[in-house]
Amino acid sequence: MTLILGIDPGSRVTGYGVINAAGSRQEYVTSGCIRTADKATLPQKLEEIFSGVTEIIAEHEPDEFAIEKIFMARSAESALKLGHARGVAIVAGVNQGVPIYEYEARKVKQAVVGTGAATKSQVQHMVKVLLNLPSDPQQDAADALAIALCHINTQFTLSRIQGHGRTFRRGRLVE
Amino acid sequence: MTLILGIDPGSRVTGYGVINAAGSRQEYVTSGCIRTADKATLPQKLEEIFSGVTEIIAEHEPDEFAIEKIFMARSAESALKLGHARGVAIVAGVNQGVPIYEYEARKVKQAVVGTGAATKSQVQHMVKVLLNLPSDPQQDAADALAIALCHINTQFTLSRIQGHGRTFRRGRLVE
Repeated sequence: MTLILGIDPGSRVTGYGVINAAGSRQEYVTSGCIRTADKATLPQKLEEIFSGVTEIIAEHEPDEFAIEKIFMARSAESALKLGHARGVAIVAGVNQGVPIYEYEARKVKQAVVGTGAATKSQVQHMVKVLLNLPSDPQQDAADALAIALCHINTQFTLSRIQGHGRTFRRGRLVE
Repeated sequence: MTLILGIDPGSRVTGYGVINAAGSRQEYVTSGCIRTADKATLPQKLEEIFSGVTEIIAEHEPDEFAIEKIFMARSAESALKLGHARGVAIVAGVNQGVPIYEYEARKVKQAVVGTGAATKSQVQHMVKVLLNLPSDPQQDAADALAIALCHINTQFTLSRIQGHGRTFRRGRLVE
């Protein structure tokens, strides 16, 4: 059993999702969003993201932390905003000793929908199907759950290639 | 007496400088750089910046924290890297309750050199002159000291406009 936290960072909304992985099975634990106040200053927003992610980790004690890797942003301005939020979310994880894994957006979409060009609503739909949810999760939460699913998929494939039904716990391989 | 911490964040080198301001007088306290290892992963680099800034604050207990405000970056890629480092540095300050102030690069150069189009070496030179240093500080440390000087200059001008020789301590005005 391995608890995976997926994070989809953003300066306005940071999605999160926690999934319990046991071999090839995946069980939904929780998901949601950290929303920053529109009128908040940048330092206040970053503190909200930092303390939000810190609280989620303290509550659920995930074994691993998966976050989207970013290569391209629409503009330098949006890249800077995203970078602020992403850096803060990563540090909240590192501070609490959770190993961080990064996955490209294309790889995340490929893992859950089967194509790197999937739309946001296709991702929402497949996250619902794969985790047996009663309805589509909120978009940012769905993206965070998709990142966690991509991580589980990648690690499970790796462990099968290595010839064992191993899972990871606190960064170490366990049988 | 007010201790000002200036921070010039970067993913490879984060400059810092601490200046003691007493009215119109400025006294150099310390400066330096937090360098991240080239081979470190992004989470490791961000943790180094976060713990570095946290240690500097714990050691010097600055009253205020000044950092460059960024409008333009060369590219989305560099904006993302800079955003990561900047977000982490800001959160290290907020976490320890230090008020954060942001200044545009042009304003910082204007404050120390007298022109918003000043070169890096002009900034280094003027920081040396204004703080009576024996030699030019290292470039990133000089930029951090310049940000702190810009903050002091701005706050002192504000307090003079308000008709008092007031200084600020822990975010509150004191006579």
